[in-house]
Amino acid sequence: MTPLNLPGEDALIKSLAALLPLPRRTMLSIGDDAAAIDTGGVELLLITTDLLMEGVHFRLAWGDLPSLGWKALAQNLSDIAAMGGTPTHAVIGLGIPQHWAAAQAELLYEGIAELARREQVDIIGGDTIKSSGPLTIAITVLGAVRREEMLTRAGAHCGDSLYVTGTLGRAAAGLQLLEAGVPVPETFSGAISSQLRPEPRLSTARLLAASGMVTAMMDLSDGLATDLHRLCLASGMGALVESALVPVDAVVADTCRWLTDFGKTVDPLLLALQGGEDFELLFTAPAVAEEELCRLIAPLPLSRIGEITTPPEVNLLVNGKKKPLDWGFTHF
Amino acid sequence: MTPLNLPGEDALIKSLAALLPLPRRTMLSIGDDAAAIDTGGVELLLITTDLLMEGVHFRLAWGDLPSLGWKALAQNLSDIAAMGGTPTHAVIGLGIPQHWAAAQAELLYEGIAELARREQVDIIGGDTIKSSGPLTIAITVLGAVRREEMLTRAGAHCGDSLYVTGTLGRAAAGLQLLEAGVPVPETFSGAISSQLRPEPRLSTARLLAASGMVTAMMDLSDGLATDLHRLCLASGMGALVESALVPVDAVVADTCRWLTDFGKTVDPLLLALQGGEDFELLFTAPAVAEEELCRLIAPLPLSRIGEITTPPEVNLLVNGKKKPLDWGFTHF
Repeated sequence: MTPLNLPGEDALIKSLAALLPLPRRTMLSIGDDAAAIDTGGVELLLITTDLLMEGVHFRLAWGDLPSLGWKALAQNLSDIAAMGGTPTHAVIGLGIPQHWAAAQAELLYEGIAELARREQVDIIGGDTIKSSGPLTIAITVLGAVRREEMLTRAGAHCGDSLYVTGTLGRAAAGLQLLEAGVPVPETFSGAISSQLRPEPRLSTARLLAASGMVTAMMDLSDGLATDLHRLCLASGMGALVESALVPVDAVVADTCRWLTDFGKTVDPLLLALQGGEDFELLFTAPAVAEEELCRLIAPLPLSRIGEITTPPEVNLLVNGKKKPLDWGFTHF
Repeated sequence: MTPLNLPGEDALIKSLAALLPLPRRTMLSIGDDAAAIDTGGVELLLITTDLLMEGVHFRLAWGDLPSLGWKALAQNLSDIAAMGGTPTHAVIGLGIPQHWAAAQAELLYEGIAELARREQVDIIGGDTIKSSGPLTIAITVLGAVRREEMLTRAGAHCGDSLYVTGTLGRAAAGLQLLEAGVPVPETFSGAISSQLRPEPRLSTARLLAASGMVTAMMDLSDGLATDLHRLCLASGMGALVESALVPVDAVVADTCRWLTDFGKTVDPLLLALQGGEDFELLFTAPAVAEEELCRLIAPLPLSRIGEITTPPEVNLLVNGKKKPLDWGFTHF
């Protein structure tokens, strides 16, 4: 393994994981979108967990409580999707601010229940406490995936093409708009709803997993610039992304233009590369599969954004010039 | 069902659960120590989750971080034990205070890892974030139980005897000592370690489940006075507890005596009834089984503390007089 300077959270997780006993009955442990357990059946059991906290992941002032509940579950479902799996069950830990009325907790739950109902996820337990601090939502989701269809971050081969579903930067543009603190025109509502009520790519992920063509997959929760590094690290590979091929959502450029009126300069490509929370799928497959994959997931757009290269470099091609695409990538 | 005035958390959980879609693939959902999923094998999959927060469930000033990690996992393992199950996997969500060094998170993890190693529980995932508020620990544990051995809160019959394992009030006495804010003599270290580093009754619970004699079981996490109500509610029964039969730990009376020197009046029986966090097992079985059950779990003491009666009254017999044992029971 090439020694890599892991930033922040990833480095901490690595040092914590080193303290744990080695898993025994486990197919896949810490380090992917979800863990996988072999229960002896044709399907593997998937499990993923997320801790969301007011002031870290969201502000209550941004939007309605049902959307917040929806998003909290959606990002866990997206982790199951990223493995090619189907979510089946969830448990919900809720730390409710002291001053909340029961009706507020119920609104939050309504959003969770709405998405759970649509995706046929059974909410089967939880823990509800009065928080001594901010609103805290801890969700754990179980899922199932056929053994031979499970996709991880680790299967990318040198020469594979690098694909993303949908468009990027919408949720980050929405975040910029919410943070701007000014009234936002109706035309940007798509960006804001991408931030507040994201759509996990469950059916698309299932199609990709069942296709047998995908070699590695993950969801884009922390932004392409961060998540691609994780995929490359897990696969022991490098990558080259062509900036011109990154599918920046149309609303992103509009948002950036509009924000300049308020003295804010934001680069659309930067939002698409580092924004996060689009919950689109990042995956690798042989270049020859592109046409078939496009047909498979239509009408959702598919973009080939580059290719897998020899490790460990992760580069970005901008105007014919190759430069490092740093972890988190905050500058050009 | 007799309409019952559910207090606080239980009422909120009930109203939140009413918002959720009805579970489909689930054997047992919200309302027991753990939920159970039928995966088609000989064993059911158990799942339980707990959210612990500094200032709500613990103070960092009380003790060492490894013990805190131990306890956070222990109380989830106890929930699996309460179903007669064996814990197998866990995921850990950690909200770390902003000012913490990585070494502090590692100390917390060491305690989690120590108990996980001893009980052969695989830690297979998690989420680690910088908390915007207090230290927050969200643990979800999976377990397995043979279909025919699973014990719930719902199986108690009228006339069954009511039993508890071990002794009660230790952890509550430890809490009193920690909260007293004065140097505590070494003789009380057992009470303090019961509070800081509790022992889930995993092997005892397995023996009881496999015996085929137990009709209902749960763990004592919130105190006998609260948890017995939950068992009775789930079973549609009442109960009569004889106060003289409640196995108050010897250290509890010593603690209460010692605390009077500091102007604190605490009743030992009260600590045993409402203290919580002893993580002993509360269960029901026919009276004829007592001797065999005693032998089965020896050397751990077993106490018959009363019996299951017609619903909905839960009463306490004190000096030959019957009085209601209220939910949470804070007065005599």
